Amino acid sequence: MLVRSMIWLPVLLTLGCTAARRDFPSDNPELPFNKAVLVGDTLYVSGHLGIDAETGKPPADAAIEARMMLDAFAATMARANMTMDDLVQVQVSCSDLSLYKTFNDVYRQSFEETFPTRAFLAAPTLLKGCRYEIIGIAVQR
Amino acid sequence: MLVRSMIWLPVLLTLGCTAARRDFPSDNPELPFNKAVLVGDTLYVSGHLGIDAETGKPPADAAIEARMMLDAFAATMARANMTMDDLVQVQVSCSDLSLYKTFNDVYRQSFEETFPTRAFLAAPTLLKGCRYEIIGIAVQR
Amino acid sequence: MLVRSMIWLPVLLTLGCTAARRDFPSDNPELPFNKAVLVGDTLYVSGHLGIDAETGKPPADAAIEARMMLDAFAATMARANMTMDDLVQVQVSCSDLSLYKTFNDVYRQSFEETFPTRAFLAAPTLLKGCRYEIIGIAVQR
Repeated sequence: MLVRSMIWLPVLLTLGCTAARRDFPSDNPELPFNKAVLVGDTLYVSGHLGIDAETGKPPADAAIEARMMLDAFAATMARANMTMDDLVQVQVSCSDLSLYKTFNDVYRQSFEETFPTRAFLAAPTLLKGCRYEIIGIAVQR
Repeated sequence: MLVRSMIWLPVLLTLGCTAARRDFPSDNPELPFNKAVLVGDTLYVSGHLGIDAETGKPPADAAIEARMMLDAFAATMARANMTMDDLVQVQVSCSDLSLYKTFNDVYRQSFEETFPTRAFLAAPTLLKGCRYEIIGIAVQR
Repeated sequence: MLVRSMIWLPVLLTLGCTAARRDFPSDNPELPFNKAVLVGDTLYVSGHLGIDAETGKPPADAAIEARMMLDAFAATMARANMTMDDLVQVQVSCSDLSLYKTFNDVYRQSFEETFPTRAFLAAPTLLKGCRYEIIGIAVQR
């Protein structure tokens, strides 16, 4: 019986390491992307914007826009049972680099214990007239 | 014998999970990047453009440029026995965000079953006067 | 005893494949990001700039700026016992695409055996008036 168990070892190893995939669809099925894709313990998260649900536009205040965007991003991650602390890399695109400090002050509050790596890049413009877009990769801790 | 088998378990685990690397070189050996790098079951793909092979420039039509770019991207992935459906995250840079719908209509046709996560970002300009550039990460399904 | 060993197999498999995380903090604890995060054998590296330590600004010469940036990037990777050859994907943002060849000539010298995949993208502007920013993912070879 033990010998037979050992025969299954390579299979178990393969199953243990091969990444099963789970997709988290977009709210709008017309859009050609998933909001998040989990493979193994790694979660890939789509670009998120800070949009006011009532107006469909970014709010007037830049700090509130950052908060809305990060909350939407965290909500997507929560669907995969992850928190912002699980992020390992994010890229923030920003239409106005003078918002760097404003963004950082809001951003810091989204994390409990640690931060991911980050690039903070200027974009000439963003979809829907937003000031920021964030995309990321997380690994379950 | 069984005891001896158990001794190899940590080694097997390490081998099973450590990522072997395979590089897929660029057509032009002068260029300092690989077109794709496979590590374990994860494929990293370089930025691709939509260039007309005859002229060396992007085609006049924006939809045809998107098609050329995505076909070139899929061809690189095929070298690693992957399809667009294996993508988990892409970033599309676009020199003109008003092409969002045009791009999506072409993009959608490259996928059979599901989509990766995506960021769609404006770029002030792109190499060779292109309208789009795409980079991505895929995991063998 | 052997039977009891087999019971631990799933646990060992999980431990073997689950990614332990190690953070490499930024020099400035005020900044909300880690310079690098290692999970399993994958290293995520933050955006790096080419800043002259004496002036706090990018040097006048574009090639020297590229060298400073890549050396800073390699130094961060070295903290995780990795070299530039372990990179699998980088994104270079550049405020002036006419620097493409200048950048490539410097970039090439940072690698011994092989190159990562790469996107080379224009940015309208970069933090601290820099010409380049680089972000990347590496996997221990």
